[in-house]
Amino acid sequence: MLPRGRPRALGAAALLLLLLLLLGFYLLGPDLDYGRLRGPAVLDGALPWDHNHSACVPLRSLLPKCELLHVAIVCAGYNSSRDVVTLVKSLLFYRRNPLHLHLVTDSVARNILETLFHTWMVPAIRVSFYNADEFQSQVSWIPNTHYSGLYGLLKLVLPSALPSDLARVIVLDTDVTFASDIAELWAFFAHFSDKQMIGLVENQSDWYLGNLWKNHRPWPALGRGFNTGVILLRLDRLRQAGWEQMWKATARGVLLTLSATSLADQDIFNAVLKDHPGLVLLLPCTWNVQLSDHTLAEHCYSEASDLKVIHWNSPKKFRVKNKHVEFFRNLHLTFLEYDGNLLRRELFGCPSQAPPQAEQLQLALAQLDEDAACFEFQQQRLTRTRVHLTFLPFELPPPRRHDVTLVAQLSMDRLQMLEALCSHWPGPMSLALYLTDAEAQQFLRFVEGSPVLSARRNVAYHLVYREGPLYPVNHLRNVALAQALTSHVFLSDIDFMPVYSLYDYLRASLEQLELESRRKVALVVPAFESLHYRLRFPTSKAELLALLDAGTLFTFRYDVWPRGHAPTDYARWREAQAPYPVQWAADYEPYVVLPRDCPRYDARFVGFGWNKVAHIEELDAQEYEFLVLPEAFTIHMPHAPSLDISRFRSSLAYRDCLRALKEEFHQDLSRRYGATALKYLTALQQPRGVL
Amino acid sequence: MLPRGRPRALGAAALLLLLLLLLGFYLLGPDLDYGRLRGPAVLDGALPWDHNHSACVPLRSLLPKCELLHVAIVCAGYNSSRDVVTLVKSLLFYRRNPLHLHLVTDSVARNILETLFHTWMVPAIRVSFYNADEFQSQVSWIPNTHYSGLYGLLKLVLPSALPSDLARVIVLDTDVTFASDIAELWAFFAHFSDKQMIGLVENQSDWYLGNLWKNHRPWPALGRGFNTGVILLRLDRLRQAGWEQMWKATARGVLLTLSATSLADQDIFNAVLKDHPGLVLLLPCTWNVQLSDHTLAEHCYSEASDLKVIHWNSPKKFRVKNKHVEFFRNLHLTFLEYDGNLLRRELFGCPSQAPPQAEQLQLALAQLDEDAACFEFQQQRLTRTRVHLTFLPFELPPPRRHDVTLVAQLSMDRLQMLEALCSHWPGPMSLALYLTDAEAQQFLRFVEGSPVLSARRNVAYHLVYREGPLYPVNHLRNVALAQALTSHVFLSDIDFMPVYSLYDYLRASLEQLELESRRKVALVVPAFESLHYRLRFPTSKAELLALLDAGTLFTFRYDVWPRGHAPTDYARWREAQAPYPVQWAADYEPYVVLPRDCPRYDARFVGFGWNKVAHIEELDAQEYEFLVLPEAFTIHMPHAPSLDISRFRSSLAYRDCLRALKEEFHQDLSRRYGATALKYLTALQQPRGVL
Repeated sequence: MLPRGRPRALGAAALLLLLLLLLGFYLLGPDLDYGRLRGPAVLDGALPWDHNHSACVPLRSLLPKCELLHVAIVCAGYNSSRDVVTLVKSLLFYRRNPLHLHLVTDSVARNILETLFHTWMVPAIRVSFYNADEFQSQVSWIPNTHYSGLYGLLKLVLPSALPSDLARVIVLDTDVTFASDIAELWAFFAHFSDKQMIGLVENQSDWYLGNLWKNHRPWPALGRGFNTGVILLRLDRLRQAGWEQMWKATARGVLLTLSATSLADQDIFNAVLKDHPGLVLLLPCTWNVQLSDHTLAEHCYSEASDLKVIHWNSPKKFRVKNKHVEFFRNLHLTFLEYDGNLLRRELFGCPSQAPPQAEQLQLALAQLDEDAACFEFQQQRLTRTRVHLTFLPFELPPPRRHDVTLVAQLSMDRLQMLEALCSHWPGPMSLALYLTDAEAQQFLRFVEGSPVLSARRNVAYHLVYREGPLYPVNHLRNVALAQALTSHVFLSDIDFMPVYSLYDYLRASLEQLELESRRKVALVVPAFESLHYRLRFPTSKAELLALLDAGTLFTFRYDVWPRGHAPTDYARWREAQAPYPVQWAADYEPYVVLPRDCPRYDARFVGFGWNKVAHIEELDAQEYEFLVLPEAFTIHMPHAPSLDISRFRSSLAYRDCLRALKEEFHQDLSRRYGATALKYLTALQQPRGVL
Repeated sequence: MLPRGRPRALGAAALLLLLLLLLGFYLLGPDLDYGRLRGPAVLDGALPWDHNHSACVPLRSLLPKCELLHVAIVCAGYNSSRDVVTLVKSLLFYRRNPLHLHLVTDSVARNILETLFHTWMVPAIRVSFYNADEFQSQVSWIPNTHYSGLYGLLKLVLPSALPSDLARVIVLDTDVTFASDIAELWAFFAHFSDKQMIGLVENQSDWYLGNLWKNHRPWPALGRGFNTGVILLRLDRLRQAGWEQMWKATARGVLLTLSATSLADQDIFNAVLKDHPGLVLLLPCTWNVQLSDHTLAEHCYSEASDLKVIHWNSPKKFRVKNKHVEFFRNLHLTFLEYDGNLLRRELFGCPSQAPPQAEQLQLALAQLDEDAACFEFQQQRLTRTRVHLTFLPFELPPPRRHDVTLVAQLSMDRLQMLEALCSHWPGPMSLALYLTDAEAQQFLRFVEGSPVLSARRNVAYHLVYREGPLYPVNHLRNVALAQALTSHVFLSDIDFMPVYSLYDYLRASLEQLELESRRKVALVVPAFESLHYRLRFPTSKAELLALLDAGTLFTFRYDVWPRGHAPTDYARWREAQAPYPVQWAADYEPYVVLPRDCPRYDARFVGFGWNKVAHIEELDAQEYEFLVLPEAFTIHMPHAPSLDISRFRSSLAYRDCLRALKEEFHQDLSRRYGATALKYLTALQQPRGVL
């Protein structure tokens, strides 16, 4: 047993030594002299990368704890938005500091990423958006042949685009993946000399040496030049040094002899630094390991722990050929498939920076009784799912006075319905998909592998990431409904196939009936069912009626749940030549066409049961008129029961919870619509069949 | 531009300084004095954990690069085997060194883990198994009330159980999760003084202080004592010091006054160290952050980067209440759901240590032509999937002369069939499930949430982890078939429901027909189909025939693929009172009962099509007799077409590839069975219907 005094004395001595050591490293550490001692002079020889720098003191320990780090990314379009999500996941996985993301976006990326971050609710991350359109004119005069287009060039304008009081920022391309804590990269700001303002990694190919092929004429650069996939910018100094004038003058000068930039902003950064080598701090190559086809990157790292940031800077992206590409792909796949919900973790040790809505949610969830009978229903209702709108490229429908978007929702087990649905409905669709992050990638491959689906550009797929115990059917419908961009919506289900002519017929009906988007009319599309999934689909009402008479088709759920569609009055529909009005009755749940701004679904209904019925009741309460269309029909295709419906059938507790939800909903309805809404409560209390 | 000489001189100076610094740290670094300076004397006061040690030089830099690290884990039973997989995933995710796992297992865990590691094919990992039964007698005399049972105590015998030339090992409980590189932990071996032989973290509760409740009498310990979830053992020194005599003497001594160990091996380790405090090196608390209910662990870490190893040492496991439990759960879920295939990454920088079969595989895959028409078929065929046998607890069927296991395979989209199947088949089942790691957890929750499934103990679920582009249907069947433990197997598909009496009827038939497991007989179970999934299932042949006559049921695929079952001769079956023989004909694919050692399925058939036909052909080639059972039947339940079948229907290329596979198969068949097998080739060349 040691006396108590000794450890303390030795501890103090150790602390003193530690401070001296840190000071020593700070002044003369190997990472520091990387930038200072190896000037551009050594750049044009062999690649003298240092294999041993990973043995140093971790630089992040030099940072004030919980310091806010700033990151800027330029992002435009659907595909880059998906890339940014993967990049951000890798960032968040390793980060230990609060982050402020500065996203320079077009309107597409902004819509996607704003919704995503809002619903992601990651603590200790702030996101600011900057409109790329405002800055385009500053770079659009530069002829450019790189695949990143105009947006690549926008990195040049960051010193003026970002807030004038922002002094430092790390700029990232959308095609990089982090394999370490970004704070270690941020720590290199401490190594900038008084004159340096740009931190860059050397370019890991011979491109700028100009000897790749005959007549290869790259932009001027110091030796191998630099790669701009990862940049440290001292914005304050760049502004002071007149960066804008500087790069514009250089670019104009080079463009006198070269016709265009080949590598966008990177060419211009290199040309500027050729003229002003004192501005640049050379960063260790491991902070931007470049995986283009002719990369020399493998000279950079000798073991996995050397890899800090991977840069997929080939147009081939993940199909690039490279000695260690499997390793890199695995790293990238890790984050592609990583459950983003798991990144909602608190940065403990730093002051709480959870978004206010996240804190309220935490509180509400914590107050639930885990042992209550309907706990899962309450939990699911409180859950705020992460949403990635328009996951795949999508073209806006042409502006028309009367147009209809088909709205539906699905999960992985209904994916095979999509091709058929596309053949039945040529019009725009807004679909909500309930998937895990890994399933989202399967979905992406599924669409890419399907000629039918990849040819369609008017189907918007909105991803809602799985979370919670029950299927949030009405929340999904609301997500899809909110994204419909036409005057009207056809509220359908994924296992229903409309008659091929329905899209045209609905638009014609809307026009003939002169239904403006303000008129409260619900057009009813009668529903039938087939027991065969190999059905010769009827192309007209006459064919449908023949199949009905032959016993091949049936009215929907005629055998187990006739109340759901009885008010549609199938007998009258047989004979009808013109639209006819019908009255609401208890449990009515027809498929309807509505103006886009119709009431939303009540999201308290989760899992199976009563989710559409409540919506139709609300339409009735708001005095919508129900009008059945004589030539419209849609047919339910058979499938195995979903897990949720199996559960409903087998569980008494599940049904009890559903009953409680219904009562709650009716009380709300009475509160909102007064005495007239009492009829729903009365209807509910009548003796019932299945429910 | 700097002259070339200067950087070199400065570089040398920097290197010298670095060496001095490392030496300084080695002798007096903060991690080192943690163990040396803070002896047990300070243990019984407040918890004086050091918050700043993460700022030190990473200790792994002191290790020889690519040093082989040894890890020992005691594991028994189904549930612990699943835990070990998650632990190993976290280990592999952060590791940078080759590993040698020493697994002390019961026969259940050995069967599971041996297959798992063999099929996982992770480079640079070696696994050795030690039979726990051989060492049980050394600890079974110790009365123990801890939930880990006898197996917990087995950690005591590691110095004698592990190879005598193994000097150092890290011992881990199955309920720990790594959040950092294990090499950093291994580096603490360098800090052992000459006398020290056990490295441990302090216990993070007041248990051993003995003041938790009235009459609480813990085993003797130094202050708060130590937790044995993570142990560094110098095996060489323990053997030399007579460890076995030491702990046995101590345990016997304590057991004179206390009736049993409460915390298994941990009580005994603590009692020994109370007597011999010089043996222990105290490790930083972050290497075993204990999440039991009354844990004081939060005094240990101040930020996420402090967390090195999380220990779920409460019987409540992940439901434990703790301030940061969400953070810990997320970390654990990360590895629970992590795609284990991604961990097959090479430890580049170290000599290649890929298993030989993995290297051959890599080579074969690399030789495939990515642009070939049937590339995906070839790729899938070469793929070696990771297999986790008996994922859930399973009881062996009682030994019987005639017994039948139902064999089938499925993926997530058929999960809802399991409950119904269980009600139709009370006998043993061997099911292969094709899932991702994340889906495996969904499956686990699904079974736990189902009273029907969780009550069954004779259903073995074998997980085959998804990999490759096509559904490996025959590989899955072979996995399930190989695990059947009864004399006979019923080779079924997951969407078929047998008549309720089938299990008893088959056993009776086997007995009556005196079918020994060596007789080459295939009992045919006639197949029908229902178009309704809400079918009143016929309980007898008479009821079935009535439904058939009523047009409610049909013979299987009568309309699109009658050849598949035509040889069963449904007309004859209607009247049959006794089993009758039938002849093979082209494309016959009945559901059959076979001896367990029947031919395997040909795994080249992947995706949809012809997978069962080939198997039946092979039975015929081996001169199996086909015997139709007069009272047996099974009914196909409707479901939406799988993705694979949709693809088959829509793709001409897919069908061409299938045709090529068939020809290849028939050539193999002729090679193996000679001229008689030519008939299959001829049969194939006849004009066909659908194919």
